[in-house]
Amino acid sequence: MVYSEEKLLEEKVFKDPVHRYVHVRDRMIWDLIGTKEFQRLRRIKQLGTTYLTFHGAEHSRFNHSLGVYEIVRRIVDDVFEGRPGWSHDERLLSLCAALLHDLGHGPFSHSFEKVFQLDHEYFTQAIILGDTEVNAVLKRAGDDFPKKVAEVIAKTYQNKLVISLISSQIDADRMDYLQRDAYFTGVSYGHFDMERILRVMRPREDQVVIKKSGMHAVEDYIMSRYQMYWQVYFHPVTRSAEVILTKILHRAKALHENYYSFKSHPVHFYSMFEEEVTLEDYLKLDESVILYYFQMWQEEEDPILRDLCRRFMNRNLFKYAEFEPAKEYKKLAELSTLFQKAGMDPEYYLVVDSSSDLPYDFYRPGEEEERLPIQLLMKSGDIRELSRESEIVDAISGKRRTDHKLYYPLDFICDDSSKKNIKKQIRKLLDIED
Amino acid sequence: MVYSEEKLLEEKVFKDPVHRYVHVRDRMIWDLIGTKEFQRLRRIKQLGTTYLTFHGAEHSRFNHSLGVYEIVRRIVDDVFEGRPGWSHDERLLSLCAALLHDLGHGPFSHSFEKVFQLDHEYFTQAIILGDTEVNAVLKRAGDDFPKKVAEVIAKTYQNKLVISLISSQIDADRMDYLQRDAYFTGVSYGHFDMERILRVMRPREDQVVIKKSGMHAVEDYIMSRYQMYWQVYFHPVTRSAEVILTKILHRAKALHENYYSFKSHPVHFYSMFEEEVTLEDYLKLDESVILYYFQMWQEEEDPILRDLCRRFMNRNLFKYAEFEPAKEYKKLAELSTLFQKAGMDPEYYLVVDSSSDLPYDFYRPGEEEERLPIQLLMKSGDIRELSRESEIVDAISGKRRTDHKLYYPLDFICDDSSKKNIKKQIRKLLDIED
Amino acid sequence: MVYSEEKLLEEKVFKDPVHRYVHVRDRMIWDLIGTKEFQRLRRIKQLGTTYLTFHGAEHSRFNHSLGVYEIVRRIVDDVFEGRPGWSHDERLLSLCAALLHDLGHGPFSHSFEKVFQLDHEYFTQAIILGDTEVNAVLKRAGDDFPKKVAEVIAKTYQNKLVISLISSQIDADRMDYLQRDAYFTGVSYGHFDMERILRVMRPREDQVVIKKSGMHAVEDYIMSRYQMYWQVYFHPVTRSAEVILTKILHRAKALHENYYSFKSHPVHFYSMFEEEVTLEDYLKLDESVILYYFQMWQEEEDPILRDLCRRFMNRNLFKYAEFEPAKEYKKLAELSTLFQKAGMDPEYYLVVDSSSDLPYDFYRPGEEEERLPIQLLMKSGDIRELSRESEIVDAISGKRRTDHKLYYPLDFICDDSSKKNIKKQIRKLLDIED
Amino acid sequence: MVYSEEKLLEEKVFKDPVHRYVHVRDRMIWDLIGTKEFQRLRRIKQLGTTYLTFHGAEHSRFNHSLGVYEIVRRIVDDVFEGRPGWSHDERLLSLCAALLHDLGHGPFSHSFEKVFQLDHEYFTQAIILGDTEVNAVLKRAGDDFPKKVAEVIAKTYQNKLVISLISSQIDADRMDYLQRDAYFTGVSYGHFDMERILRVMRPREDQVVIKKSGMHAVEDYIMSRYQMYWQVYFHPVTRSAEVILTKILHRAKALHENYYSFKSHPVHFYSMFEEEVTLEDYLKLDESVILYYFQMWQEEEDPILRDLCRRFMNRNLFKYAEFEPAKEYKKLAELSTLFQKAGMDPEYYLVVDSSSDLPYDFYRPGEEEERLPIQLLMKSGDIRELSRESEIVDAISGKRRTDHKLYYPLDFICDDSSKKNIKKQIRKLLDIED
Repeated sequence: MVYSEEKLLEEKVFKDPVHRYVHVRDRMIWDLIGTKEFQRLRRIKQLGTTYLTFHGAEHSRFNHSLGVYEIVRRIVDDVFEGRPGWSHDERLLSLCAALLHDLGHGPFSHSFEKVFQLDHEYFTQAIILGDTEVNAVLKRAGDDFPKKVAEVIAKTYQNKLVISLISSQIDADRMDYLQRDAYFTGVSYGHFDMERILRVMRPREDQVVIKKSGMHAVEDYIMSRYQMYWQVYFHPVTRSAEVILTKILHRAKALHENYYSFKSHPVHFYSMFEEEVTLEDYLKLDESVILYYFQMWQEEEDPILRDLCRRFMNRNLFKYAEFEPAKEYKKLAELSTLFQKAGMDPEYYLVVDSSSDLPYDFYRPGEEEERLPIQLLMKSGDIRELSRESEIVDAISGKRRTDHKLYYPLDFICDDSSKKNIKKQIRKLLDIED
Repeated sequence: MVYSEEKLLEEKVFKDPVHRYVHVRDRMIWDLIGTKEFQRLRRIKQLGTTYLTFHGAEHSRFNHSLGVYEIVRRIVDDVFEGRPGWSHDERLLSLCAALLHDLGHGPFSHSFEKVFQLDHEYFTQAIILGDTEVNAVLKRAGDDFPKKVAEVIAKTYQNKLVISLISSQIDADRMDYLQRDAYFTGVSYGHFDMERILRVMRPREDQVVIKKSGMHAVEDYIMSRYQMYWQVYFHPVTRSAEVILTKILHRAKALHENYYSFKSHPVHFYSMFEEEVTLEDYLKLDESVILYYFQMWQEEEDPILRDLCRRFMNRNLFKYAEFEPAKEYKKLAELSTLFQKAGMDPEYYLVVDSSSDLPYDFYRPGEEEERLPIQLLMKSGDIRELSRESEIVDAISGKRRTDHKLYYPLDFICDDSSKKNIKKQIRKLLDIED
Repeated sequence: MVYSEEKLLEEKVFKDPVHRYVHVRDRMIWDLIGTKEFQRLRRIKQLGTTYLTFHGAEHSRFNHSLGVYEIVRRIVDDVFEGRPGWSHDERLLSLCAALLHDLGHGPFSHSFEKVFQLDHEYFTQAIILGDTEVNAVLKRAGDDFPKKVAEVIAKTYQNKLVISLISSQIDADRMDYLQRDAYFTGVSYGHFDMERILRVMRPREDQVVIKKSGMHAVEDYIMSRYQMYWQVYFHPVTRSAEVILTKILHRAKALHENYYSFKSHPVHFYSMFEEEVTLEDYLKLDESVILYYFQMWQEEEDPILRDLCRRFMNRNLFKYAEFEPAKEYKKLAELSTLFQKAGMDPEYYLVVDSSSDLPYDFYRPGEEEERLPIQLLMKSGDIRELSRESEIVDAISGKRRTDHKLYYPLDFICDDSSKKNIKKQIRKLLDIED
Repeated sequence: MVYSEEKLLEEKVFKDPVHRYVHVRDRMIWDLIGTKEFQRLRRIKQLGTTYLTFHGAEHSRFNHSLGVYEIVRRIVDDVFEGRPGWSHDERLLSLCAALLHDLGHGPFSHSFEKVFQLDHEYFTQAIILGDTEVNAVLKRAGDDFPKKVAEVIAKTYQNKLVISLISSQIDADRMDYLQRDAYFTGVSYGHFDMERILRVMRPREDQVVIKKSGMHAVEDYIMSRYQMYWQVYFHPVTRSAEVILTKILHRAKALHENYYSFKSHPVHFYSMFEEEVTLEDYLKLDESVILYYFQMWQEEEDPILRDLCRRFMNRNLFKYAEFEPAKEYKKLAELSTLFQKAGMDPEYYLVVDSSSDLPYDFYRPGEEEERLPIQLLMKSGDIRELSRESEIVDAISGKRRTDHKLYYPLDFICDDSSKKNIKKQIRKLLDIED
């Protein structure tokens, strides 16, 4: 039997708290899960620093990747199979792309990418196409199979329907993470009737569409997404931890560039500091390694690196104030000067962080971020864009919401053992009661 | 106001997926959570290697410790407060002991304790009584307060009722972990009506007792516990990972003793290898540190250490066979010889692991492990031991169940590139089909 | 002890699937639950004909009334007690009003009220103030206590805060029914974080307000409400059953007015037919009685009454088509004529039903229905109306949605054994495929 | 296409709170659900008088019947289809038998059967084989198809495997009702991992067997069953309501036999009183009809009938005391005499009720009730009876538990307006505090 059609003698089943079970029948999927590149995802948290806000959010990207796979498996096996518009030939490709779509994520991706100009999508491609165990498994289904998987994930594959399974405004990726992150954080948002949505998905030439009868379940999904963004993903405490993490990386890089002599040499970081990260280097990174360094750096001589690492490890985070850039830029400048005077480098201790989300949008060609809108399949067979049918979605469509916060170390600012007067001025500007 | 009575201006609330919310009103509890020794528990998984079997089981001891605190808080504030037999003076002590009862756990405790003769209970005491942030906080409630907390956890405190809240056959510790581990693994066992059990708990001089009307909820709890032990805690795949982990530690220690020159010097391990671990050393250990070394050791020269670390990191675990020591000791000896001949050191590659549990027992004085039985409070006011009232509990009372398994590397044994005949013999003895 | 302060020796606990437990400590509440007028609510379904669409929706108003009581109990005992703005004196009054607010509902209220000009609010007042067991219990707390309870329910009580607990856009009534109806139907809408909402409720002079920090939970609640209205309460199949039920009542009344001789004399209906219903008559009505008659009337001579009763009892409902009154009134007239010709009285067999809902609105004085808006309590202590803070709520605020459907008996229309051509015309007009 | 193979154009889906959705694809199943005999099950509660103890338990047998159908559908379509030992030809038969297995239940079956010597199994057969809509639908699949369905339900069908799907110690019937009754009552028992059990069911010649790997889920199921029996089904308050209901029926029959002249003639009861119930009579009975009479009988002249009906309708139930027949028969006789003297007919007001359950048993040939044991399918292919493998099940196997209670009207006994001394004696015997 050709490898791509090979089935396991006995189905493998993973107990999953979100989908109850994840079912694996295909040998290739089983082999991919067993590769070291995929196992590495166990050591990378799905939600980065969120566990410092919601202590339950300790789940890994491994978890989520299996979940996305399972959702796509159910769509293609239980809903699409045998329907016009869907070709069984795309089945295994879809499953592999679903499983591997986050493969290139590194530890605390968000911060690392920002500081070191890394791009997890680039590394996903590199792992799939490079000299890896994943590539070796994929190649057994044909020399061009890795390339096809990479294309689906890069959204350049010719069959747009396959792409839309994992990259659209209602895809398996989002459906898994909303439910999973809600489950592990314990929040009551994030619930919607996925069973129903799966049952009303239909294959169309260029994307998955949703039968009109499932519209309300989709509305519920969009509201869940909205709530999860503002209640969980953009939680100000999580962002505080991320601000500190980012500043640690900045500081370490700056020290390295200034020939600072680390007590604990940041071997794993060298290639990042020099922005010449190889695939091999990259794959060695996971959150254990990063936390190992942060732990060691708590004893470094440099006071900033040491302080920031201690803050991160012991969850002694920055506090925050609301900030409106357009109105308060002068105040920021003033604060910056005062921080400098008080001996707190504003580069590291006075940080503006902004979050922004667009809960749903229809297609606005030519815009920076072209989003695939959600299309409804009407009883008549026509296709209509969701916001034209749903009043609720129409009401929020295209409404971007942005939030800015100013982060600072309250403990330093309230420590009057030195620079008492300057700190008093800072507190006044930040509206901190004495 | 005295510190021990100090309340937060605004109650702090943790979103918890198991108890919905964990409520903190006492300043001391809030301060304890903020200590670095307590925050360290975030980097130690509650269930050690279980995440390699149940991918959801990635939750930390931090998680569980908050949960035990919350259960005790609800017992003392919502049920005991104001009842005869309970003194409000024990309230804060009970809360602190609940929160800190697992403080001394190290990374993958089970294996570490076995290999390095460590004892997490010893370290819990040491952290509470030593020169730590935790001790500093506790001391603010009185010089002898740390000692009292330590005594409750060590079960030597004079008020046995307080001890029984966290150490008995139905205590806050067990009630939290059964539910929490069920939640994160996603298994359907582990559910019981804790609300009901809490409501029928009553303080008695020497232990918590349960009103007879709650007996069925207790039966359900005992069955949950039984199922969790055999379905989750003693799962043979989890034990396989633990076998490998234990053998990695053994090997590293042996190499160190033989002056092997590590590429990555195991600095953090030195004091353990020499069995002279200080509190300071101990507190530096967490699972990031351990995984960092395991990651590095994948590149060591020593083939055994390297192989075992790769197995652990990439989840390429040992397979297992049922094993009955009394009947099969000869077969084991035979296998041992064959392994040796085949070039696989049986010390590391042929391992018997045993698990054993007693679902419930009444008090049998003089026995090795004296367990506090569960006492029912009858309508008449009398106290009766649970198994005398519950037929189901009586049926399983005192019935110890033990399970032995033999672990080995299936891939090596099936690799016929060398020692083909010997391996064939091994396979035959292990009943592995060719 | 005065009766109004009397507590039960032992708390009574009801197992409730929505709130887990309903706790009763006050003797008066316990006595009220035991009255025959309150027990009668067990024989009236909470959701009328909805069980013919969602088979799980068989729960009674008894169920819901306990739930509303429990929510108010938790608000006043766990949140309001001891806070400024709240007087303990209003406690029992609030609990009684919560428990009794739906006391006057009759069987299938919606249809009965429409056909017979009844008003359940009138009967709630009548039961509370009349010669009933409920009144006798209430009076034990003071001669004017029944009147006060009646006033709270009628929204004329002077303390508006108490009224707002059970009658506002976010009250205990709505919070219970949304969750309860979701639970029993099994839909995935209807979930929101009530725990959180309760915790952030604060008493103010004229209404309950919500701390700003709970705004997102309130948004979620409003979305749940929206979904429940359109997915459950206004479900077209439920409305079909209600159309038939209404027409049965119309028909029976018309027959009575025309001196039709019933085989089963509608003794229980006489006073309704003549629109002179006494409290005593009214209290004899429940759904068993109604269903008893419908069952008997399946054998009546009158073909319309017989047919409609059979349809209702055996769930052989009308089908429906979308209908736009403004555009299609001519078509309706045409259909009406054709129905007449085909021997189907359009009065009973061609029915337009309209549903309309306003998900949320702020206060628009002078409008027909003056709704109490939801007020947020800002950190500053200011009060702000919800839609000014929440973009999502603002987007849907004041947007009424209305839906019209045309109901007809598909089986009759497709039965070509007579009037074949006319029915063909009807089918054409209704877009029914041949 | 033959009718038995006919599929609906579009699958029908019922929202079900227990199984999420019930799926209907087969035209015959859809048609059966639409029959008036099946719709009648909506008017018969699944748990009789249990709603007077657990207010959520208002669900009907309609509900449960759909659930059993859905479980069997999933077993045969998702697990058995294509496996050796299972013939697709039995599929529709299995589905029909599952759907219709409870068709003959009448209102409050338990009490009615006892008093009037009725047998719901007899009526299930009669409905399936008689002149009914159900029979007409079934016959469309072949003249002998109704007979086959009846045989499966009567356990006389030749293919024992089909029978075991709905009648064994682990069948679809039990799996549905345990979960459903737990859901609606809200108790925390009744949960077990049905998904897992379904996945490990395998067809064997004479019954369904369970793969050994699912043994723990089965243990959990048996414990759930045990708890549900004692916590819900045999709840003493439910039994009190049933005692009263039974006595109402007894009284009405006795009055009828004594030519008592009812104000409300019990037309629907005549054939039962005379024990000559026809199918037509039987089908007219449902709980609305019964409750209608009970309501009317609250105004009868006969004081016993009137009192008992008022008690039932207004939930003024009997209290109970533990009772041990072997030891306390003398006390019972004594009480009986005293009741007589006090003017309370002991026939109606002093009632012993016994409940008894056997949680699990293996096959004991020749015993009164021969139970099909649960068989495990071992890895080797052998079959072993469950209690030989499971220690927990072995411990409770064959252990019958019986409970006797004595019911009496506490209010009468405490009403000292007459027969004061006798009542005092009664209270003393019953241990009721003065």
